[in-house]
Amino acid sequence: MIAKGIVGRPVTHFLGGGGEAAEQVDSVAVEEPLEIRVATEPVAITMRTPGDDAQLALGFLFAEGIIRSIDDVGAVAHCGRPGDEGFGNVIDVTAAPGVSLDVEKVQATRRGTLTTSACGVCGRRSVDDLLSLCGQVPPGPPLQLHLVASATERLRQAQQNFARTGGVHAAAALDAQGSVLAAYEDVGRHNAVDKVVGALLQTRSVSAESALRSATRPSAEVGSKPALLVVSGRASFEILQKATMARIALVASVSAPSSLAIDLAQRCGITLAGFVRDGGFNVYSHPERLVAEAR
Amino acid sequence: MIAKGIVGRPVTHFLGGGGEAAEQVDSVAVEEPLEIRVATEPVAITMRTPGDDAQLALGFLFAEGIIRSIDDVGAVAHCGRPGDEGFGNVIDVTAAPGVSLDVEKVQATRRGTLTTSACGVCGRRSVDDLLSLCGQVPPGPPLQLHLVASATERLRQAQQNFARTGGVHAAAALDAQGSVLAAYEDVGRHNAVDKVVGALLQTRSVSAESALRSATRPSAEVGSKPALLVVSGRASFEILQKATMARIALVASVSAPSSLAIDLAQRCGITLAGFVRDGGFNVYSHPERLVAEAR
Repeated sequence: MIAKGIVGRPVTHFLGGGGEAAEQVDSVAVEEPLEIRVATEPVAITMRTPGDDAQLALGFLFAEGIIRSIDDVGAVAHCGRPGDEGFGNVIDVTAAPGVSLDVEKVQATRRGTLTTSACGVCGRRSVDDLLSLCGQVPPGPPLQLHLVASATERLRQAQQNFARTGGVHAAAALDAQGSVLAAYEDVGRHNAVDKVVGALLQTRSVSAESALRSATRPSAEVGSKPALLVVSGRASFEILQKATMARIALVASVSAPSSLAIDLAQRCGITLAGFVRDGGFNVYSHPERLVAEAR
Repeated sequence: MIAKGIVGRPVTHFLGGGGEAAEQVDSVAVEEPLEIRVATEPVAITMRTPGDDAQLALGFLFAEGIIRSIDDVGAVAHCGRPGDEGFGNVIDVTAAPGVSLDVEKVQATRRGTLTTSACGVCGRRSVDDLLSLCGQVPPGPPLQLHLVASATERLRQAQQNFARTGGVHAAAALDAQGSVLAAYEDVGRHNAVDKVVGALLQTRSVSAESALRSATRPSAEVGSKPALLVVSGRASFEILQKATMARIALVASVSAPSSLAIDLAQRCGITLAGFVRDGGFNVYSHPERLVAEAR
């Protein structure tokens, strides 16, 4: 979260069409590919801001349903040797002893959406698929309106890079009292969210266990529970998908949501707030979770 | 480009943490999955704003190197029947008679990046791979500084949805005189660029032929040549990759570029301008292409 994801680059600043120009050095956000492997098998490649790669890999694999809690994970390590070209851009996640991480099974699930025998692929089916994978987010305790109103300001406080490069997205998880549990920046908004969820996995604040197995065995979660996910840009399907997998009941975005993000939030029981700015905001789903402060 | 990509959704507008709320209906950008198939084989699924799907599919396949010009394409059509659930969200591109669209070959190229026997994957190799696929963008004629300075205003004029939803990205291609050749909006910035390039393919303003085969046979391009690609947000590797494939010499973005976008622009011969606002802008690569207006 510090300035490690920034690099200086020479730039010619033109004041307009007349040709007046000044040479300067600007800070720009670093973008590099990261290959995520599971037991040496490549699963995905994403363009990301280097740093916090373990969190990114864990959060990504959790969102894909490949890991269900930090207990599924043995080691997370960059492969290769320091000094090799590209070192640091491949990360390998291995299973904990006795755990099998079934990459194929999950890809088959995704292919279920991709290659249906019928010709239809629609937003409703995407939401159905996700619901069958992770179920609804439980109603949980009410959340204060003030938590939403102040979320983007909390995010801004947690950000170091944005003011310098203007080129990174940010995401943060807050608890019900508004404390920041995790905050990350990245050139990709989805990466910033994966890093947040990965960090929450590491502190055992998130797992799929409590959601799907609470009836059969006690929750393994011990960290503070995330109540709200705040993102610096827009709220798309992908962001809501990741929030649903992480059982975060409230998503707040600085900018607009898409139609499918709203549909997913409604169906999955998430309160979706957009245009969270200057103390006001819009709520697109499940406003019943929000309560005014006690006077 | 008209308001077809928006839908009304009920929203509760909160003025702050005190609980004052108003019910209203907001316009939100539509997001739906599109599955792109080549000869019935699924190639990709992308979350996009419906409309202009043919342009999106063509632009995507061109950026991936699967089609090299509109002459490679037989038919582009949604599959299924109107009225079926999800109709309109699967599009199939077939090859022109005598043409073979080698999806496997291209995926192998991409896998070359993904699954190297060595452990390294780095930005430099990503740029190398792209250069080997499409070569450098030729220097071409000088371009006026004013073209860059006015590009984001041209983009704004071409946009219909943004003011209403705040939730879409936009991209446009301009010729050297600043005329808009194509302009599209989408929830995904990469989709907006694919739609622009797809439209340029349809008018034969873009093809891979002239770049790679000009020595052996004359160009098949007949439309006005795109001189500049302008995008509403940031400039990432992916945007520069698509501009390189389309041989567009100048990329202008409203916001910041990433480090890898700058590297790619420098190596591939593209002039990259960022923070194009209020008449001023930064140039991160190849400023020599830009000239002041004649007095």
